[in-house]
Amino acid sequence: MEIFYGHIEDGGMMSLPEQESAHCVRVLRHRAGDTVYIIDGEGTMYECRIMNDSPKGVEAQIIASHEGWGSHPYHLTAACCPTKNNERYEWFVEKAIEMGVDRIVPVIGSRSERRVFNTDRVRRIALSAVKQSLKSRIPDIDEPVSMSDFLAGGLGDALGLIAVCYEPKNAEGQVVPRVHISEALSRSDNRRVVVLVGPEGDFSPEEASAAIAAGYIPVNIGTSRLRTETAGMLAVASVYLSKF
Amino acid sequence: MEIFYGHIEDGGMMSLPEQESAHCVRVLRHRAGDTVYIIDGEGTMYECRIMNDSPKGVEAQIIASHEGWGSHPYHLTAACCPTKNNERYEWFVEKAIEMGVDRIVPVIGSRSERRVFNTDRVRRIALSAVKQSLKSRIPDIDEPVSMSDFLAGGLGDALGLIAVCYEPKNAEGQVVPRVHISEALSRSDNRRVVVLVGPEGDFSPEEASAAIAAGYIPVNIGTSRLRTETAGMLAVASVYLSKF
Repeated sequence: MEIFYGHIEDGGMMSLPEQESAHCVRVLRHRAGDTVYIIDGEGTMYECRIMNDSPKGVEAQIIASHEGWGSHPYHLTAACCPTKNNERYEWFVEKAIEMGVDRIVPVIGSRSERRVFNTDRVRRIALSAVKQSLKSRIPDIDEPVSMSDFLAGGLGDALGLIAVCYEPKNAEGQVVPRVHISEALSRSDNRRVVVLVGPEGDFSPEEASAAIAAGYIPVNIGTSRLRTETAGMLAVASVYLSKF
Repeated sequence: MEIFYGHIEDGGMMSLPEQESAHCVRVLRHRAGDTVYIIDGEGTMYECRIMNDSPKGVEAQIIASHEGWGSHPYHLTAACCPTKNNERYEWFVEKAIEMGVDRIVPVIGSRSERRVFNTDRVRRIALSAVKQSLKSRIPDIDEPVSMSDFLAGGLGDALGLIAVCYEPKNAEGQVVPRVHISEALSRSDNRRVVVLVGPEGDFSPEEASAAIAAGYIPVNIGTSRLRTETAGMLAVASVYLSKF
């Protein structure tokens, strides 16, 4: 099943941008009259019939719409520091989308070695992962943000979890023992979750204690030594596997 | 922390094979007298002092041994069909080892498109993943085996789970409803687990019913449409996240 990404137009029509149109007409050789499946990137999939098969701009009539197509029963913000190696972050984004994620935030921690982040490239990868995994909503990919600015944004009514590799302290200097991420998730029936995963050198003690002050629960993701992108992927997997 | 792979010799000594020796001496410039960490691949890590720094064959004296170093509190056999794209399977092997897996079996299902499997290459990748993730036991990587031969091997006392994308039937033609993999794992305190994950076209109904007859519980891995290697990785993640 091939999915296209397009925009809603007046008169019950959808249009495909140029690249999608070229792929639809030149590569997949679709012609007027063919049925195609177009997502709006916001959570709806439209079954459409092609009216204009121009490789510059396909136009298609909506036949049926499927709201919430490929959705998941939780709302997850994965705030993961970029990895030194870009490819590994892109892999994390692909896997997170395959499972189900709503927002990806490249948080820059004080120990982050990578501070430059190609948001456009990651957004392109996200769109392709969304289509490949038959979903209709493209997760938000934020611009990079410092840890303090991200925390200042607040948790709202979400369950906040911060993964750290050591026992962190609160602002008063008391140890706040970590719980296993699966336990933290099973203790709460909140379906809005924010997970924070640090860079290769982890979050600093100051960052961890700022997160605790902001309402985050410190968690561990098991005892294995995990790469940053594996930790991020497992944080998403924990939510995917527990909030079904 | 750099880990080497070597063999135990008489007299409390360890030796490194040629490739490891060259890496140790030529690349990392270790010399006689240096302390190095050598795993035996069978579950023990040895702290050693280099006695002979030949790039053809390093010899080192054992100072201390750490049994069960980097081990995990379960025994998992991941019997996953090879993916069409080799790289994706290799990625699965790397991530499974990072979390913790004991045996990887490339099962060939009746719908498997890939029936050729480079076991030696996957074993090399496994060794490198073991060293990178600070573990001391290299999981067994089996030669490819047909689904029927694998099932004939029996489950022993392990909990057997088979991931399928549809509701399978038993040999009598009755539907055996799938349970979510996290539920199946939480219902059992068995720490020996075998998970079966099919190829791109899934296991056939006949294979699923043969697995049920062999004692496997049919499970689903959530509602997302997952790639084969993501399903395999999530099966391992489910065990890693629940049997801690």
